[in-house]
Amino acid sequence: MFSTMAQRLQELMVLFFLAIFSKAVAGLKPYTRANLMPDAANNNYCLSWRLAVEANNVRGWRTVPAQCLRYIEAYMIGGQYDRDLEFITQQIWSYVSGIVPSSDGLDAWILDVDDTCISNVFYYKGKRYGCDPYDPAGFKAWALMGGCPAIPPLLRLFLDLVEGGFKVFLVTGRDQESLGQATADNLHNQGFIGYERLILRTASYKGQSAVKYKSDIRKQLVEEGYRIWGNVGDQWSDLQGEFLGNRTFKLPNPMYFVP
Amino acid sequence: MFSTMAQRLQELMVLFFLAIFSKAVAGLKPYTRANLMPDAANNNYCLSWRLAVEANNVRGWRTVPAQCLRYIEAYMIGGQYDRDLEFITQQIWSYVSGIVPSSDGLDAWILDVDDTCISNVFYYKGKRYGCDPYDPAGFKAWALMGGCPAIPPLLRLFLDLVEGGFKVFLVTGRDQESLGQATADNLHNQGFIGYERLILRTASYKGQSAVKYKSDIRKQLVEEGYRIWGNVGDQWSDLQGEFLGNRTFKLPNPMYFVP
Repeated sequence: MFSTMAQRLQELMVLFFLAIFSKAVAGLKPYTRANLMPDAANNNYCLSWRLAVEANNVRGWRTVPAQCLRYIEAYMIGGQYDRDLEFITQQIWSYVSGIVPSSDGLDAWILDVDDTCISNVFYYKGKRYGCDPYDPAGFKAWALMGGCPAIPPLLRLFLDLVEGGFKVFLVTGRDQESLGQATADNLHNQGFIGYERLILRTASYKGQSAVKYKSDIRKQLVEEGYRIWGNVGDQWSDLQGEFLGNRTFKLPNPMYFVP
Repeated sequence: MFSTMAQRLQELMVLFFLAIFSKAVAGLKPYTRANLMPDAANNNYCLSWRLAVEANNVRGWRTVPAQCLRYIEAYMIGGQYDRDLEFITQQIWSYVSGIVPSSDGLDAWILDVDDTCISNVFYYKGKRYGCDPYDPAGFKAWALMGGCPAIPPLLRLFLDLVEGGFKVFLVTGRDQESLGQATADNLHNQGFIGYERLILRTASYKGQSAVKYKSDIRKQLVEEGYRIWGNVGDQWSDLQGEFLGNRTFKLPNPMYFVP
């Protein structure tokens, strides 16, 4: 009896140990080196891609590389995008704090709208964070709903600039005729109140590059006497061309490229 | 007897389970959220900082944030810096492949020297990867030794450009009088052979910003009839100002900032 029990105990212990061990091994699988490598290599590649996009080394790209879908999703909604926005906004504040606006009311800032003031991340989630190509009709339908949420650090910056005596111009490539009212309503319902002018793309600028259109708008402002202290956008096309302003700030956007 | 055995078996199982469990918990410790947070938060901050530097959002910085020493060290020597260089060089190649140089010998590229053609990473290791402030005498002594290694993807690009019929101009802020010979020797011993001109900073440009000095040099080249197809550097001051060329490429450098 004793030896039978001892043997059964031994068997039970072995089975129990095996069960625990296999469970442990199965649980560890996602963390083993061999399993991590492809993901790590992919993440490294996508980090290189993202850095190159933000430094304006990759231009004219139409979609996010398919292999970077999960990486860009994690970047956009996992916290790092928000941290990057906060970091850059701190840099803008630190620059703003050194400017004393004059009393003539001509100290200006230029802010882009989409993914600068208000966010399209929710829309782009449905476009696999930019892995799907640009869909003009889909984006128009989304913009018409007027439900883009404010980007919190940029809303705080906007309100501080207005309160600090700057004239803030919101300059967007959105079409004035079809999206003017929805955009104005969206900005208002998100708290962007007190700007000097919301400037949308009129028919005369249709088909022109963002660089040309936005340069022309800035030129007009400079000709009106405004001093452009800062110019903030998520696209390099917001920040290139002429009359750029005293400082430009590039907000991150790895989801799409506006030429 | 049976009940005693059953009880002992139960006790053994409990002890065994506790032992396995405590081992499992101990083994997991380094991966728990609480343990990862300080490093992860620090890495996230340093990634935001690095991205902002590469996108030209942080300017005039004198040292790498002390908390980013380990992060920048890991970036520079852990593989990602090399991957970023390879990635950008691929972008350059892809752009070059669309250009057909003419037979007039006036198709030009401009490459910066330090941390574009040849590397100072070994020197900066001794300066805590830029956490220590710039040390002009120390850097001069290092440069005089002429031992900067070639940056492999950029050496391949250089040789391809020369072979492809482009005139390559190496333009550096290094002082001609004191470092001219050492720099020419260093480039030669690292394989940078066949360039059109190595242009160093002469006494007349002493004290001028890199943006002004390099703009003037590019202006002279354009006045000589050269078409600047590309302009490659690790500093935004290489890529700003006038006569920038048809495309600019920013190589990564989170170790120092040249105004």
